[in-house]
Amino acid sequence: MSDSDLCPLSFSETFLDHKTSLVLKVINWVATRFTAFQRIDIFDTSTHGRIFALDGIVQTMENWEFMYHEMLVHVPMSFAANSEKVLVIGGGDGGTVREALKYPTVQKVLLCEIDQEVVNMAVQYLPSLSGALKDDRVSCVFEDGSVFVRTLKEKMDVIIIDSTDPTAGEGGQLFTQDFYSACKELLNDHGILAAQTENPIYDRLWMKTAFQRIRTVFPSAALYTGFSPQYPSGFWTYVVAGKKDRLPIPQFQPSEKLDLRYYTPQIHSAAFHLPPFLEEILR
Amino acid sequence: MSDSDLCPLSFSETFLDHKTSLVLKVINWVATRFTAFQRIDIFDTSTHGRIFALDGIVQTMENWEFMYHEMLVHVPMSFAANSEKVLVIGGGDGGTVREALKYPTVQKVLLCEIDQEVVNMAVQYLPSLSGALKDDRVSCVFEDGSVFVRTLKEKMDVIIIDSTDPTAGEGGQLFTQDFYSACKELLNDHGILAAQTENPIYDRLWMKTAFQRIRTVFPSAALYTGFSPQYPSGFWTYVVAGKKDRLPIPQFQPSEKLDLRYYTPQIHSAAFHLPPFLEEILR
Repeated sequence: MSDSDLCPLSFSETFLDHKTSLVLKVINWVATRFTAFQRIDIFDTSTHGRIFALDGIVQTMENWEFMYHEMLVHVPMSFAANSEKVLVIGGGDGGTVREALKYPTVQKVLLCEIDQEVVNMAVQYLPSLSGALKDDRVSCVFEDGSVFVRTLKEKMDVIIIDSTDPTAGEGGQLFTQDFYSACKELLNDHGILAAQTENPIYDRLWMKTAFQRIRTVFPSAALYTGFSPQYPSGFWTYVVAGKKDRLPIPQFQPSEKLDLRYYTPQIHSAAFHLPPFLEEILR
Repeated sequence: MSDSDLCPLSFSETFLDHKTSLVLKVINWVATRFTAFQRIDIFDTSTHGRIFALDGIVQTMENWEFMYHEMLVHVPMSFAANSEKVLVIGGGDGGTVREALKYPTVQKVLLCEIDQEVVNMAVQYLPSLSGALKDDRVSCVFEDGSVFVRTLKEKMDVIIIDSTDPTAGEGGQLFTQDFYSACKELLNDHGILAAQTENPIYDRLWMKTAFQRIRTVFPSAALYTGFSPQYPSGFWTYVVAGKKDRLPIPQFQPSEKLDLRYYTPQIHSAAFHLPPFLEEILR
């Protein structure tokens, strides 16, 4: 038996149905911090790698986060060719910023994270994600994203909403119609927005609500799906939206330049084909 | 508080990594039976509907089983147009048989389930799946599938392997190269085989092994994916294989006739586009 097998801790997350939980054997408890906004935990597991959780909800599993971050970022980036300015709301672990920086046209990435301690913890304990935050093109703002988008004057090419669950803490502010409207105002005419929109198993109402609100605000919007084993059910949804009547034709970058493990142009297209039961929920 | 909220039971499944568990709040314990092969449990949950488990491993969640069964059946059926004879190995809950019977060309479905008590329990407690077993075209055989395929004389058009995990009980016999070879012998020249092949998060070695063995035995084989929230990680894989050098062009039935909630021709095609990390595992 190694030392890690002897660790007596386990981490238990209860999903949004309040009736299903995931229990993870911990091999090393790394850190816990209480901030003005939430409880932050970082710990190691053997199957999932290092895990970062807010108020007991897993935000990042180091071994699987690439699936979520690649789908959240490369889909909107493909619709917004030659983007220069990207705003990331939430996403303090740095994974979304890391993916956006892979585009050589990107000159500026603004990260707006409400809780500075999330970034501090990520910098200290999640270098494979937060390393991107040291890039010269990145600026961090520690503010409520729903307020920040109303005060920012500079127009953006892409806005990516990498929020917590709408039911957890401040996350709900990033699911309101007013917030989506403010994001639209902040985008250039060719601008693209993307948001994580939960899953159809444990949180179908918020998925539907987010999609409908975004579609009400933006002339074009589509929901797409991707595997995300780090989150409940593994069946994740995202919405991408644009200010024109139709989303543009995607422009794909050579994949070797983007260093991708999940996203491909074929998976991009496949992600928009929804199963009938999901179409029905969204109707 | 309703009576079901007061039920003090929970069901805990430990995944194949032995370090991650799913815990489900039970609202009604329906039945437990010990057979010559395994322990069978049936219970109700509010999020997932009725659940059927073998030796503590969830086999069927009534609310989500359609995703798994539709992908396991309609993909091979699309490659085997006008099939008449289908052999299902495992799958005693009846869900796979139910999907196969949707094709009017199908004249005979043979279900080979090792444990008669699985079928008995499904008939009693899971009518939405097992109802199909009453169809005149269905015959049930209660035998070890790996033995049965060696004794059956009648050639089949489609063989579907709806097994338990290879690590659980008798399931491993349905993952050997000898078994796949016997299946190939049993198929007509235009015959198609499909098998569930686990997931790349908790069981990547068996996924890879199953794929490689099937590909060794069959001239054409491809792995495909689908969301399956009833199983660990939700990221499920399947393999479809044929006796010709290439899989045929799929022939899709009008979807309204098949009464589908997950599978569509677009999702069929999308399912074969694998993320690079998965391609790499299979290499």
